Amino acid sequence: MTSRATWVYDFSEGNKEQKDLLGGKGANLAEMTNLGLPVPPGFTITTDACRYYLEHGGTPEELDAQVTEHLTALEKAMGKSLGDPDDPLLVSVRSGAAASMPGMMETVLNVGLNDESVRGLAAQAGSERFAWDSYRRLIQMFGKTVLGIDGELFDDAFDEVKREQGTESDLDLDAEHLSDVVARFKTIVREQCDRDFPMDPREQMDLAINAVFDSWNSDRAVIYRRRERIPSDAGTAVNVCAMVFGNLGMDSGTGVAFTRDPGSGAQGVYGDYLQNAQGEDVVAGIRNTVPLVDLQGIDRGAYDQLMGIMSRLEGHYRDLCDIEFTVERNRLWMLQTRVGKRTAAAAFVIATQLVDEGLIDMDEAVRRVTGDQLAQLMFPRFVSGGDATQLTQGMNASPGAAVGRAVFSSEEAVRWADRGEDVVLVRRETNPDDLSGMIAAQGVLTSRGGKTSHAAVVARGMGKTCVCGAEELRVDTKGRKFTAPDGTVVDEGDVISIDGSTGRVWLGEVPVEPSSVVRYFEGEIDPAAEDTDDIVRSVHRILTHADEQRRLDVRTNADTPEDSARARRFGAQGIGLCRTEHMFLGSDRRKLVEKLILADGDEDRQSALDALEPLQRQDFLEIFEAMDGLPVTVRLLDPPLHEFLPDLTELSVRVALAEERGEPDEGNLRLLAAVRGMHESNPMLGLRGVRLGLVVPGLFAMQVRAIAEAACERKLAGGDPRPEIMIPLVGAVQELEAIREETQRVLAEVCESCGIDVQPLIGTMIEVPRAALTAGEIAGSAEFFSFGTNDLTQMTWGFSRDDVEAAFFHQYLDKGIFGISPFESLDRDGVGRLVQIAAEAGRSARPDLKLGICGEHGGDPDSVHFFHEVGLDYVSCSPFRVPVARLEAGRAALGGDRAGS
Amino acid sequence: MTSRATWVYDFSEGNKEQKDLLGGKGANLAEMTNLGLPVPPGFTITTDACRYYLEHGGTPEELDAQVTEHLTALEKAMGKSLGDPDDPLLVSVRSGAAASMPGMMETVLNVGLNDESVRGLAAQAGSERFAWDSYRRLIQMFGKTVLGIDGELFDDAFDEVKREQGTESDLDLDAEHLSDVVARFKTIVREQCDRDFPMDPREQMDLAINAVFDSWNSDRAVIYRRRERIPSDAGTAVNVCAMVFGNLGMDSGTGVAFTRDPGSGAQGVYGDYLQNAQGEDVVAGIRNTVPLVDLQGIDRGAYDQLMGIMSRLEGHYRDLCDIEFTVERNRLWMLQTRVGKRTAAAAFVIATQLVDEGLIDMDEAVRRVTGDQLAQLMFPRFVSGGDATQLTQGMNASPGAAVGRAVFSSEEAVRWADRGEDVVLVRRETNPDDLSGMIAAQGVLTSRGGKTSHAAVVARGMGKTCVCGAEELRVDTKGRKFTAPDGTVVDEGDVISIDGSTGRVWLGEVPVEPSSVVRYFEGEIDPAAEDTDDIVRSVHRILTHADEQRRLDVRTNADTPEDSARARRFGAQGIGLCRTEHMFLGSDRRKLVEKLILADGDEDRQSALDALEPLQRQDFLEIFEAMDGLPVTVRLLDPPLHEFLPDLTELSVRVALAEERGEPDEGNLRLLAAVRGMHESNPMLGLRGVRLGLVVPGLFAMQVRAIAEAACERKLAGGDPRPEIMIPLVGAVQELEAIREETQRVLAEVCESCGIDVQPLIGTMIEVPRAALTAGEIAGSAEFFSFGTNDLTQMTWGFSRDDVEAAFFHQYLDKGIFGISPFESLDRDGVGRLVQIAAEAGRSARPDLKLGICGEHGGDPDSVHFFHEVGLDYVSCSPFRVPVARLEAGRAALGGDRAGS
Repeated sequence: MTSRATWVYDFSEGNKEQKDLLGGKGANLAEMTNLGLPVPPGFTITTDACRYYLEHGGTPEELDAQVTEHLTALEKAMGKSLGDPDDPLLVSVRSGAAASMPGMMETVLNVGLNDESVRGLAAQAGSERFAWDSYRRLIQMFGKTVLGIDGELFDDAFDEVKREQGTESDLDLDAEHLSDVVARFKTIVREQCDRDFPMDPREQMDLAINAVFDSWNSDRAVIYRRRERIPSDAGTAVNVCAMVFGNLGMDSGTGVAFTRDPGSGAQGVYGDYLQNAQGEDVVAGIRNTVPLVDLQGIDRGAYDQLMGIMSRLEGHYRDLCDIEFTVERNRLWMLQTRVGKRTAAAAFVIATQLVDEGLIDMDEAVRRVTGDQLAQLMFPRFVSGGDATQLTQGMNASPGAAVGRAVFSSEEAVRWADRGEDVVLVRRETNPDDLSGMIAAQGVLTSRGGKTSHAAVVARGMGKTCVCGAEELRVDTKGRKFTAPDGTVVDEGDVISIDGSTGRVWLGEVPVEPSSVVRYFEGEIDPAAEDTDDIVRSVHRILTHADEQRRLDVRTNADTPEDSARARRFGAQGIGLCRTEHMFLGSDRRKLVEKLILADGDEDRQSALDALEPLQRQDFLEIFEAMDGLPVTVRLLDPPLHEFLPDLTELSVRVALAEERGEPDEGNLRLLAAVRGMHESNPMLGLRGVRLGLVVPGLFAMQVRAIAEAACERKLAGGDPRPEIMIPLVGAVQELEAIREETQRVLAEVCESCGIDVQPLIGTMIEVPRAALTAGEIAGSAEFFSFGTNDLTQMTWGFSRDDVEAAFFHQYLDKGIFGISPFESLDRDGVGRLVQIAAEAGRSARPDLKLGICGEHGGDPDSVHFFHEVGLDYVSCSPFRVPVARLEAGRAALGGDRAGS
Repeated sequence: MTSRATWVYDFSEGNKEQKDLLGGKGANLAEMTNLGLPVPPGFTITTDACRYYLEHGGTPEELDAQVTEHLTALEKAMGKSLGDPDDPLLVSVRSGAAASMPGMMETVLNVGLNDESVRGLAAQAGSERFAWDSYRRLIQMFGKTVLGIDGELFDDAFDEVKREQGTESDLDLDAEHLSDVVARFKTIVREQCDRDFPMDPREQMDLAINAVFDSWNSDRAVIYRRRERIPSDAGTAVNVCAMVFGNLGMDSGTGVAFTRDPGSGAQGVYGDYLQNAQGEDVVAGIRNTVPLVDLQGIDRGAYDQLMGIMSRLEGHYRDLCDIEFTVERNRLWMLQTRVGKRTAAAAFVIATQLVDEGLIDMDEAVRRVTGDQLAQLMFPRFVSGGDATQLTQGMNASPGAAVGRAVFSSEEAVRWADRGEDVVLVRRETNPDDLSGMIAAQGVLTSRGGKTSHAAVVARGMGKTCVCGAEELRVDTKGRKFTAPDGTVVDEGDVISIDGSTGRVWLGEVPVEPSSVVRYFEGEIDPAAEDTDDIVRSVHRILTHADEQRRLDVRTNADTPEDSARARRFGAQGIGLCRTEHMFLGSDRRKLVEKLILADGDEDRQSALDALEPLQRQDFLEIFEAMDGLPVTVRLLDPPLHEFLPDLTELSVRVALAEERGEPDEGNLRLLAAVRGMHESNPMLGLRGVRLGLVVPGLFAMQVRAIAEAACERKLAGGDPRPEIMIPLVGAVQELEAIREETQRVLAEVCESCGIDVQPLIGTMIEVPRAALTAGEIAGSAEFFSFGTNDLTQMTWGFSRDDVEAAFFHQYLDKGIFGISPFESLDRDGVGRLVQIAAEAGRSARPDLKLGICGEHGGDPDSVHFFHEVGLDYVSCSPFRVPVARLEAGRAALGGDRAGS
């Protein structure tokens, strides 16, 4: 750092691209200043200064002089000076990092007031009450956020004064009362901090600035950063801005606005205004706001100016903006702007509107929406109407719409569900014991815990609807009931409805409407028809463009003809993962599979395999038909064989009881011996996948034969089957070599006997870390790799998903160990590194190696971007995620960021 | 390949360093030729030619001419020509790759004989019988190895002729009979191959050469290479050599010799000689050989010449050599030499002898012995004497000496062992069901299966004595007995002794003698004392030198003061892994641990922890005392807590039975609920290690406090404790950061309250693949890494060792998926790559990062070399492997290869 370093920038010196240096708030204030908009003058202390402060334990030497310089300029601009007893300049001090970050100090207003200047302010404003109230607010905010005093102490003192005056409302206090409050607040400061509240305005400002810097390392901020992997040395900027007041009378006020409807995307005037008030009051909800359009009647000049500014901002930012503003004695001041949040539906509609308005092109429209938003539009939705009454609103923890009878324990959930009833599990909070109940329920409702609570995390992992933290509900699990704020009591068995997308909770059944977007995918809605809604039109236009632009193909994970056909309607370009283990289930097959497992000798085993083969062939035939002309990647049997046998503990109890009763069952005894012999301590890492193929003679050969024969039959019928054979759980090229030889032998036999040439690609899953690490060798025997990122995540992290997700992931999220479960979104640093290593080594050993991914991450937006970056050929995901993956693949190709706007 | 390529080298053109080009056999023949030793003239066709052949499906164009050229020179040197009807030159054709490799074609002798030249040979040799026998041998060997005809067809035809002559011995057949055999053999060739046995000697030779090339890709050779990771394109050389005959009369003969005793290393004349015989006959064992020293009386000239040559070879190779030679009519011919195999004891003794003889230096002596050999010397040994009688000899599958009662099933093994009896489990072969029996037994004996059989692989994994493939034994498991070849019947309960180092099996108890090398390590034998044996002296000298040269430190894995003290005597330089889970066992602790696990709330849990703390402290105190002045790396609790509770299935059965009997046990019911709640599908990947530390409040803090307080107490007592704290199962730096903060807080508290400064290093295990992949970040919070290569191997391969080793590793070894279990020897390509990635990233993030390894691989020779190459600071292994690791660390530093000589 040289002595010439610039630590402070005037609002007129920056622009919106400088978020890293000036923070988001500072950069946008600078942008507005430079657009000539009425922003109160001010300056920003850079994130560099913060970094210096944190590293050296103090501010850089030059900072003091630079702040003084900018402060002087500010005073000049405002014609007032800080601490002037007659006409004091007041400033706000606000933090503002590049990324918005909870846990940091937010704001101190009214800096510059002291026992003297409070009188000057009163004189200038013509209101003693206003001045003392402002001073009261300063000491309170300063005491809490800068001096770290427990806020309740101030609240209690304030309440005491109100009690003494026999009132409950601030508004009933006059200047004298408020001056008394100030005195009491100063006493609190002295008692808690062993010092007086600083009378020197500059000291107030400097302390506030340092407090912002310090808040960068508050516990909450540290945990948040740890979770989000925000570099711990990014630092925050500090904005110092001249105060303007919306509470100087009826010619003043404050408001928030959106440049168009953030709910639907419709154009118009959206916002709220509160006369004679400050921003704080709007948040506190003491008085009711009026619709923004009413400002027209209140202050036509300010209204027109605001409309002009909003239109300009939208054109300038080329997006919906949200805005905070204040009117001080008929003069409009812009306090903040940023690209505004919006609903999923609005995001799509706005994006295409902006295209039609010529503000952005289709590329940009695709970048503006996200797969998460599209996924939200695909959930069925509750529609208003019906006789259900809303009870409360909690947190929207896991989307979807669930209707069912309220139950209050895991056991009851299972019991009711077994009876065929839909249930919603209601708990104060959940823990791992509630797992079976959560599985049995349509949805989960809790009264405690946030979006990283056990209930929220586990429900999201299961794709189950969840509303959590509905704190207004009193849940009495022993009494099997909960009570709503209006006194309504909901007992076990009463039907409730919960909306995981909004957090709303109703008593009774709310009608559910299927998503119009899904109906469009299903071909039930024509996007070009006149009566088609804006959402479907926008989705259609954006997805069409995304498809044109994307480099990644999108396939689906499907094991049945029905799923295959649906996925194809949703845009899947083939099957990336067709599991065969489900084909081993079903009443006709279980017996055969059991015979296979318990086989006594080769002959016995082969006869079981021979009986299974035509059944498998038929399965494949139907799937090839549904996916005619598109690739179908069939994974040979993966799970350990004992998964097809009864559970050891259950069977042991059954056998022990039968013996106790003197009714031993020979069959069960034999079965128990087999189950015991095959029992594994860690089946996930046991005898399965390619290992089974190598150890159980004839098993994989039977499956390959079924695939090849089905393909031949389909070809003979004039179809175009495109099977690909995938070997699971390969860890060493030698395993693959051995199975590959067997596979090629069987294929040759079938082709010869059918007289038809079927030459499926033969490839492997990359799901064991060692496979990724030795991918160069493995590529020598594989024509394609398909990353099995579920297992790869399990083994790379050492996480058994079944065990750990419910047991402690919510705590991990809380402690910031990760920001999102690595099963939801691919862990780039660990698992992703393996994917990258394998993709590079595989391609350099075999340039035409086809690379895909068939773990659940194939439908996760962030992960799709990663797979695009790594250069895979395709992602494969569940049918319902296919459109999401199509969109995100397009966004990735267009350089869209992962979060959207 | 240019037309100038040299595909053929005369024996006089090569040397012993050219193994890659000429193969091992060819290179040594060349070396002897150039030393001027009497090697029959010949030439070597290079491995390059083989590679060309395999790649192009035919020999290079110039090869034919070059072979002709060398053949002409050979004919000239021998004064005979190939196929000459009057005096034919005969040659042998032999394969010889760089590494000796089973599965390839070995040898065809007597090439050059046909219906005409057989008569010339008879005339020259003065023996019709000799000539026809030679011809018979040619067709038989050629038919089998070159033409691929089933050898039994020849054997059957030969036996038929013998039967017709009413004899069982070849020697009773005269020339006429043998000529009849030749005729029948020729018929077999015609019938089997649709062609005549080739009469053209050059065609014989060319076909034999190509057959050697082809045998490179035989099934057995491919599997062997796959397993040993020998490059599949290395190829083999072919040696063509003039035949000399040891079977031309009593002035001829053949023999093998060693330049010193391969059993003890003692100097002298060691070998065997057989008059009037060929090498084949020695192998067939038809007649008894005489000790080599008797050659002195038979043929003084040849004997003296041989002694001179052997002395010269030893000086030249600077090592024990083994030799094959033939005397043809009093003329000595050297047919082969190579550095000879020897016993472990001889290896040490010879190495120091050669130093004393000035042939090699101490560096070379260290390179000449291996850790495996040292380990063999550390097993207790059976000594002769006692009244046990040897029953048979099987394969030495897993070393050690086991004495116990014979049992024939896993159940019996467990039953007898529970009674306190030592047992040896005897089976035809074992399978995964025998696991519990193998665990209960002292040793395992099987009558079937080789060194990769289930029994052998699993026993080696357990470090349990095993003799397998004792094929002479008839094992009757149902009858609970086995029968030895002499008719002795051994019943269940009879005491037997098995020697896993030699494969010997005795009836009765063979006295066991502790290893003198172990007694030396224990300080019971002074290596400098006069009566100390040569083995101990040599081990002492070599280990001392290895210690001086090695760069790796050697620590031990020890959890008790006793193990620590022993390891220290064995040379350990500290503890690399002190597990704390064993400290949770024991009668006084089980209750507390159960209380901890079932704790109802924080207070309950903390009181259990508080009660455990002083017990742990005492454990640490004693270990610090035993390791005073040396580092002790303590691993915080690793296993899942439910491991300390009863087994789910057993408890379920107990509870079900109690209920059935109407005697429900409240305590068991409560316990069962807890066990069920904590049950994990894959506990290895579940809630354990650092995850426990993060989720169970106070657990790690208690352990850290115990360590710190023990260290303080020890310091106060004048000791020098050097604890290091190791966090297990870290996968993300965030986990480590959180625990590190807690650890430092506790350390500071203890130091403050004791008034003593204890600042242990805080580090982490690298045992989860993700930790290795993100090691750069993790190093930011770790002062050391210790690679937990057991878990790292489990997760990198996706192998649950408990499950897969017994279930299918023997099949994997058989199929050549790997050459050695990755749990025995570190898998360099997969797990090793992660170690390397982590070591590099860790060091570059923190240059003074200490790197060690504490998996079982720390005591495996090959793995120690790898850890040396990767630049770790230390290896840690079980106390008994400490000397092995010391030696191998020295050998690695001296550039010794992994296999030794």
